Amino acid sequence: MEKGNHMDPTDFRKEVRRGNWDKPTAGVAPGYAQANLVILPRSAALDFLIFAQRNPKACPVIDVLEAGVIEAPSGKDSDIRRDIPRYRIYQKGKGHREVSSIEEVWQQDFVSFLLGCSFTFESELIKQGIPMKHIDLGRNVSMYQTNIPCNSAGSLSGEMVVSMRPIKSSQISKAVEISGRYPEVHGSPIHIGNPEAIGIEDINKPDYGDQVPIGEEEIPVFWPCGVTPQSVLKNSGVDFFITHAPGYMFVTDIKNEELGR
Amino acid sequence: MEKGNHMDPTDFRKEVRRGNWDKPTAGVAPGYAQANLVILPRSAALDFLIFAQRNPKACPVIDVLEAGVIEAPSGKDSDIRRDIPRYRIYQKGKGHREVSSIEEVWQQDFVSFLLGCSFTFESELIKQGIPMKHIDLGRNVSMYQTNIPCNSAGSLSGEMVVSMRPIKSSQISKAVEISGRYPEVHGSPIHIGNPEAIGIEDINKPDYGDQVPIGEEEIPVFWPCGVTPQSVLKNSGVDFFITHAPGYMFVTDIKNEELGR
Repeated sequence: MEKGNHMDPTDFRKEVRRGNWDKPTAGVAPGYAQANLVILPRSAALDFLIFAQRNPKACPVIDVLEAGVIEAPSGKDSDIRRDIPRYRIYQKGKGHREVSSIEEVWQQDFVSFLLGCSFTFESELIKQGIPMKHIDLGRNVSMYQTNIPCNSAGSLSGEMVVSMRPIKSSQISKAVEISGRYPEVHGSPIHIGNPEAIGIEDINKPDYGDQVPIGEEEIPVFWPCGVTPQSVLKNSGVDFFITHAPGYMFVTDIKNEELGR
Repeated sequence: MEKGNHMDPTDFRKEVRRGNWDKPTAGVAPGYAQANLVILPRSAALDFLIFAQRNPKACPVIDVLEAGVIEAPSGKDSDIRRDIPRYRIYQKGKGHREVSSIEEVWQQDFVSFLLGCSFTFESELIKQGIPMKHIDLGRNVSMYQTNIPCNSAGSLSGEMVVSMRPIKSSQISKAVEISGRYPEVHGSPIHIGNPEAIGIEDINKPDYGDQVPIGEEEIPVFWPCGVTPQSVLKNSGVDFFITHAPGYMFVTDIKNEELGR
């Protein structure tokens, strides 16, 4: 068992800050919600928050750090610049680079957004007897760029990114009901079966994450995904933004059950 | 029966725009959600949207109109500058004045927010056999400034305003459950009984709206109220903002049941 599996969120964030953790965060600090990160200069932040308000399934905001603030309300003594194991810094026309700290590029006008992450509902699905195949295979979840349009906001527009989990036909209804109780971590699926209908040409070639095989009794079930903002910000030509690297999340002090209803 | 009671939202908004409706909007376009309005210059809008995100029970955002936009996504062919029967224009140090149109003060950097309104859950409570005493008495609901602190955001801070409805002890549980299904229109009560505990000195002297007597078998039940932003923006010394006048709401195209879960 990994060391991170025994830590509480505060201790885990300290380990990350000390540079002792450079792996994905799946499974660490069990029972606590993890979060996607988006950081934008203040000038672009209002459009993004309106975008999130209009697309709550893809972008469920659980925390906002005002310009220049580094401690997340959902993480006591946290430092948003150093407490995620791997960040992506995007610059228009240059793609992105990955770093383990953003202290050196930090500006006082940076506004940070933490968005709910599917780890929370996955752990509830597993508890209730619905296996997560990608976890059993030790892989990252499969993610796809779709043709499902997001609701635009100001200068921001684009299509939704979804995550896919193969679910047995007999368990799909239960999976919908359980994940539906967690609207702040993407909620219920956006699409069930029929990948072509949402613009996925080859289900065996995910655009992000790993390939996960779909068994004979299984149907691919698609949930809105926290990678959507990265895709939309790129698509909309935003000059500069920072995110977490996929799978390397911010571990919050929020218990999973606090996000359920 | 009032003329407005037979109109759909689009027709009603046109009547308002023509200057043919200068009364509160309770009861018009039955079945459709009404909304509180807050308009701020773009420079103050991000703080307000973060404030709303942190105080979703008092400030449930159902719509945002980007800077300069006058048509609300939730109101086809609407004009946010003219479709509310009465507006309040606040200027720091000068209090407010009431007008029937804000066309003359409109600026291209104005961002408009529509917030869910309790009319939606009230109509559901009545349908399910819980009488709304203030409606039966033909009065406005009683509203009180409390000492319940809101979560601050940037320059914005203050205490919550609540609305009070006297409910029979035998029906309080049901009232909590029903209103709880409508999180986008303030959701479940914030406090039940014991007004002193939330800083209300005299339950017979509301700070806004009308006095409503509490019967022997009744307990005062308090819900977060859409007047909270007006109180917080004033308290925080914001230079300029516009709201609807209490009771004179924006009528949306959203059906009440769309806001339930």
